[in-house]
Amino acid sequence: MSPKSKPDNAPPAGPSCEFRASARARAAGDASRTRLHRFHPDDYTFAGVRTDRYKAADGSWTGVLRRTLAGGGPLMGDPAAFELRYFEIAPGGHTTRERHEHVHVVVCVRGSGEARVKGRRYTMAPLDTLYIPPQAVHQLMNPSDAEPFGFFCIVDAERDRPVPVDPA
Amino acid sequence: MSPKSKPDNAPPAGPSCEFRASARARAAGDASRTRLHRFHPDDYTFAGVRTDRYKAADGSWTGVLRRTLAGGGPLMGDPAAFELRYFEIAPGGHTTRERHEHVHVVVCVRGSGEARVKGRRYTMAPLDTLYIPPQAVHQLMNPSDAEPFGFFCIVDAERDRPVPVDPA
Repeated sequence: MSPKSKPDNAPPAGPSCEFRASARARAAGDASRTRLHRFHPDDYTFAGVRTDRYKAADGSWTGVLRRTLAGGGPLMGDPAAFELRYFEIAPGGHTTRERHEHVHVVVCVRGSGEARVKGRRYTMAPLDTLYIPPQAVHQLMNPSDAEPFGFFCIVDAERDRPVPVDPA
Repeated sequence: MSPKSKPDNAPPAGPSCEFRASARARAAGDASRTRLHRFHPDDYTFAGVRTDRYKAADGSWTGVLRRTLAGGGPLMGDPAAFELRYFEIAPGGHTTRERHEHVHVVVCVRGSGEARVKGRRYTMAPLDTLYIPPQAVHQLMNPSDAEPFGFFCIVDAERDRPVPVDPA
C-alpha cells in the first residue's frame, strides 16, 4: 500500500464507468440501484466516490481529505439516517478541534493515528473503533511522518453544525 | 491473521477490563463516555464487544456471527440514528435470503465473499463497499473453503423487520 496521500486540494477522482453510472443514479434520485464501490488499495480510493476537501480552508485543519461513500443527506441521497465517510489525514496533519451534539463512530482503516477526546489521547491502528460522545471536544491527527491515517467516520445524516474550539 | 472463525454458538468474548467498563457504562446509560474498542487481529474481535448469534436458528442461515460495536437501539444505547455491526460468515456459510425497507451499507474487512442482490452477484474484497437498496432481495455468502468473510454492516437504528424470501 502506498504511503502517499493526496493534497488537500486534490481534484475529484477522475470519472470512471462506475462514477458516471453512480452520478446518474444520484442525479435521478435512484436510491433503488445497487452500488458497489470497489476499493483501490494503491491510493485508498473507491470506484464511483469522489474526493472532497475536508471543509473550507480556515486555518483550523491541515492535510485532510474526505470521501463520502453512502448515506442520507444531500450528497448521496440514500434513504438512510446515517452517512459513511472516509477521511484521510496526511502525515503531520490534523482535523479541526471541535465539539457538537452528534456522535462520531470512527474506524481506523489505514496507517495509524491519534484521537484526542476530552483531553485524553487514544492511539488508533487498523479496525480499532472509537465512539466519541456528544459535546466531547475532539480532534484527530496523524503524528507519523510516513503513512496517511485513514478512517471511516459514521454520523447521523441529520446533525448539528460543529463548533470550533480553540486549543487549550 | 488466522483463517479460523468462531462457530455460530460461540459464547460472548470473555470479559476484559474494557468489556466490564463498557458494560457498566451501557447499563448506566452513560452515552457521555468515550469508548475505544481495540481490534484483535488474531480473531477479529473488538475489546468490549461481545459475540452474538446472527439470529435465532431457523434453518435459513448457517455459520454467521454478529458483533455490535456502536449505535442506537437497545443493545448499545448510543444517541445515534444508526448501528455499526460486524458480521462474519464461516467458509461455506450464508445469511438469510431476505428483503426489507431499510438499506444496508456493507464494507468487507476480512477475507472475501459474495453478495447476491436482486439476482446479481457481487464479489467483495477488503474495503469494497456495497449499498443495498430498499426491498432488494439479498443474501451474503462465503463460498471460500478457508478464510472467514467478515464485513461491517451499517443500518438505521430504527428499521423494519426483515422478510425471509425463499430461494428462487
